[in-house]
Amino acid sequence: MNPNKKRILIVGGVAGGATCAARARRLCETCDIVVFERGQHVSFANCGLPYFVGDVIESEAKLLVASPDLFEHRFNIEVHTETEVTRIDRQARTIEVRDLKTGTYREEAYDALVLATGAQPIRPPLPGIDLPGIYVLRNIPDSRKIKAATAQASRALIVGGGFIGLEMAENLVALGLDVTLLELADQVLPPLDAEMAGYAAERLRANGVELRLGESAVSFEQHPERGLILHTSKGATLNTDLVILGIGVRPEATLAREAGLELGELGGIRVDPYMRTNDPAIWAVGDVVEVKNRVTGQWQLVPLAGPANRQGRVAATAIIHDFSCGEKEALPPLAFDGVLGTAVCEVFGLTVACTGASEKLLKRLSMDFEKVYLHPGHHSSYFPGAKPIHIKLLFSKTDNKILGAQAVGEKDVTRPIDVIATALMQGATIFDLENLELCYAPQFGAAKDPVNVAGMLAGNHQRGDFPLANWDELETTPALLVDVRSADEYAGGHVPAAQNLPLESLRDRIHEFPTDRDIWLICGVGQRAYYAYRLLAQNGLRVKVLSGGMKTYSARRRATEASG
Amino acid sequence: MNPNKKRILIVGGVAGGATCAARARRLCETCDIVVFERGQHVSFANCGLPYFVGDVIESEAKLLVASPDLFEHRFNIEVHTETEVTRIDRQARTIEVRDLKTGTYREEAYDALVLATGAQPIRPPLPGIDLPGIYVLRNIPDSRKIKAATAQASRALIVGGGFIGLEMAENLVALGLDVTLLELADQVLPPLDAEMAGYAAERLRANGVELRLGESAVSFEQHPERGLILHTSKGATLNTDLVILGIGVRPEATLAREAGLELGELGGIRVDPYMRTNDPAIWAVGDVVEVKNRVTGQWQLVPLAGPANRQGRVAATAIIHDFSCGEKEALPPLAFDGVLGTAVCEVFGLTVACTGASEKLLKRLSMDFEKVYLHPGHHSSYFPGAKPIHIKLLFSKTDNKILGAQAVGEKDVTRPIDVIATALMQGATIFDLENLELCYAPQFGAAKDPVNVAGMLAGNHQRGDFPLANWDELETTPALLVDVRSADEYAGGHVPAAQNLPLESLRDRIHEFPTDRDIWLICGVGQRAYYAYRLLAQNGLRVKVLSGGMKTYSARRRATEASG
Repeated sequence: MNPNKKRILIVGGVAGGATCAARARRLCETCDIVVFERGQHVSFANCGLPYFVGDVIESEAKLLVASPDLFEHRFNIEVHTETEVTRIDRQARTIEVRDLKTGTYREEAYDALVLATGAQPIRPPLPGIDLPGIYVLRNIPDSRKIKAATAQASRALIVGGGFIGLEMAENLVALGLDVTLLELADQVLPPLDAEMAGYAAERLRANGVELRLGESAVSFEQHPERGLILHTSKGATLNTDLVILGIGVRPEATLAREAGLELGELGGIRVDPYMRTNDPAIWAVGDVVEVKNRVTGQWQLVPLAGPANRQGRVAATAIIHDFSCGEKEALPPLAFDGVLGTAVCEVFGLTVACTGASEKLLKRLSMDFEKVYLHPGHHSSYFPGAKPIHIKLLFSKTDNKILGAQAVGEKDVTRPIDVIATALMQGATIFDLENLELCYAPQFGAAKDPVNVAGMLAGNHQRGDFPLANWDELETTPALLVDVRSADEYAGGHVPAAQNLPLESLRDRIHEFPTDRDIWLICGVGQRAYYAYRLLAQNGLRVKVLSGGMKTYSARRRATEASG
Repeated sequence: MNPNKKRILIVGGVAGGATCAARARRLCETCDIVVFERGQHVSFANCGLPYFVGDVIESEAKLLVASPDLFEHRFNIEVHTETEVTRIDRQARTIEVRDLKTGTYREEAYDALVLATGAQPIRPPLPGIDLPGIYVLRNIPDSRKIKAATAQASRALIVGGGFIGLEMAENLVALGLDVTLLELADQVLPPLDAEMAGYAAERLRANGVELRLGESAVSFEQHPERGLILHTSKGATLNTDLVILGIGVRPEATLAREAGLELGELGGIRVDPYMRTNDPAIWAVGDVVEVKNRVTGQWQLVPLAGPANRQGRVAATAIIHDFSCGEKEALPPLAFDGVLGTAVCEVFGLTVACTGASEKLLKRLSMDFEKVYLHPGHHSSYFPGAKPIHIKLLFSKTDNKILGAQAVGEKDVTRPIDVIATALMQGATIFDLENLELCYAPQFGAAKDPVNVAGMLAGNHQRGDFPLANWDELETTPALLVDVRSADEYAGGHVPAAQNLPLESLRDRIHEFPTDRDIWLICGVGQRAYYAYRLLAQNGLRVKVLSGGMKTYSARRRATEASG
């Protein structure tokens, strides 16, 4: 079959749609490729919008990664902005298209149709939700409106403590606004576990953001003098000048649903690994599809640019391959193998990143897991500028495979998370992490890289050399709690029931320990307790070490107090 | 067997030896563990020495990671500094020990002996090599001497352009010295390929370092007025105040050789994956051993702290396991599986990192390979502060496996190299790199991460979608060379034989291209040439794309000119 004159229509021209169009052109010079975009812009940098609001990105032009003009002249791709696709006729293989500027309708025929319709910000049906001054942030016009509103505002209220909520908080503070952030959950950054998200919560508060956890919006009203008012689930009445809704997004799957395409339980379009829907002539990519989580095997919505781009590439390749009747066997065929949910967010200089499954997700799915915490330096402590980072590694108790990781730090923590994400994609175990050979110079890492150390802690635990106790059992355990830090450190704050017995004196006082009772050892980050453990365990005592030490315990305590 | 009273003697107390001692204590509370160190310090940060000379690390105390006192009190490990081990009696399982302070000898018995004797800086037997003012940098006393010498010096000469040579150049420039650097090879940083090392050479020159490539030291003399003089292989006579020898190190294997232990061809001790020598009671770790390269399968010397530390951990585990007669089966046993040679170096703000095999090494071993170059931004171009990085990826033409990578950039390039090193350790292919799911936010990366792009370029090539031409064939190819950049860019510098035909005009001028001749397309970094390639190839023309575009071509040209 000749691919000549084949017609590929793409609905949506941002991340996934734009990539799909460009890739299709590279693979097929003779196809007709047409992109329909409801909005004013194609291929814009939506991840940059909070920073455009905050004047970090100064010019709107910077956000435009590629213009319709570039698509037409460089790629010979037709682009129609402000053009909505209103209906799919799967039988006839046509779509109905509405020009939003003129209001006129027309039909377009396709050989392959790609739905890259994205997602819509959630606007919960609360009283007053449509009042002026309540914004979502999804595209360039949204960001313009918010920018304009900030010019007259001195207070802002953000509903939702996810990535966008936190990035907006930072940018609105930078503009001089008083910012309050409401989050229904008892933590910010839902993909992380609470004790790791606690570092971000602390950082928000330290920068003047009023953080209200475990509290949600109930209704809005406009008061003649007090401005916009939000009533919360805890009965508070908050005055503000503008509200940003950062509650999340839902897949924009109306077109697909009305055409009878298969959707998943989360409302996204179901696709195969080649991004094809249950209609063999229709593909879907980006925020509108459901994807399989590689760790849990569950369907999931992951509205992120990285997967969207890769999906666009996969779909284009599959379509062209399809047109050619498989005459050129790709080796191996490009497929989308699911997601890990790797993500990163910066908030007031703190970097928070994660990959794979969180502990709460593993618990919800009753999956077996074990965890270790560590608090290494970002680089060797003897080189100036070393700051601690905080890492949590989750792995399988039964087969030692990596399940997920979270990291927080002053400095860039994307390196350890990307390394662990790479290992996770390859099905690696904690033992593989022990042996990784990573870059080391004193200003860049450590001879034992934090990722190596995470693997070693986990490996020690799995080999039975290092039984771990966790902060979440600390208040209920009948074990004897022994804090092996110095007397001064102990005096500066300790676990209530713990008694102090500094590491250096342990060898002389081993006889004081009970042999018939569990002993849990506590220190700053876990290292001294590990030394103490080896000493006591080899003397026949029943010992565990508090994972992550006082650092993890305190982070969790602060996170809990904050939500109270 | 009871591990009680077993005696572990460790010769050398820096990276590998110190780690081995501490790990052995953690695994065995009752063994005797004794460390003998010829120098004044154990467990010091030798990677920090150049920065101590340059006052970046201000206090000598910072370099002492752990003191003999800490070893004794925290770990109950006996440490003897300034104590040399002079002989091994393998039959009797004893060593002869000399106290360097008193000159007295004594014998010590061992159950397990660990040789962590490290390496010695190479001092070539040149006339005048022992003159005052000629230094090596291997330990804290060395760095003190150099520091003292710099106080009276205004000129310094560095012999050797490896990691230490470059770090010393930066630090001596920071102290205000005029620095000349001599390197026998036609490039700096021997683990990298010349065109990638060229970026570092440029950076050195831009910071005032006089770089003399392809030139070596022949003899030294002390002149009454002109100071120290170095005569070079090119007949030059260079005046200086001090000389740093950074030519490399050789394994300090005298003790092992005299004891009849098996050595390799490179002069290092041969060990099994548990770091055991051919004597079942003797182990060896660190710079003194030969290790297998995981990519090439060849024995190699890798005098780096990371492998040394991991080897120390492996040896200690194997020794204690041995003492226990394997009563506790480790799962899986800790082993050292060879090296990739991952390394990083910073030079005047430029970061240079590599992992796996270089092209020149693959060529020398006649291994099959293919390569791609890319010049992506460190993070999204629309976010302030994006700087280009330069990446070279080497992979197998036949099985698509990753073989190595090199990266250079203004910003931290350890992230892509660590990700590729991790993938390489897991036996991943370039197709795995295409699909990696890495951290993305505009200030941290790109929706298509540089590592994804490297995989995509390589994948396109291997699928036959994207045949690559390389700069090293550019001057000999009979192909028609077409530069598809704009007329302005072309006018600013181009490959001599290339003619200009901007991308935008290609579709209209396809008929001008010969159908019976190879066509090589050239642009800035490879992207526009790729678009042009798709267009021309689909019109039946015989086309290839210059990998890495003008950026790689120019970098190579500058590197070559520099060595001329």
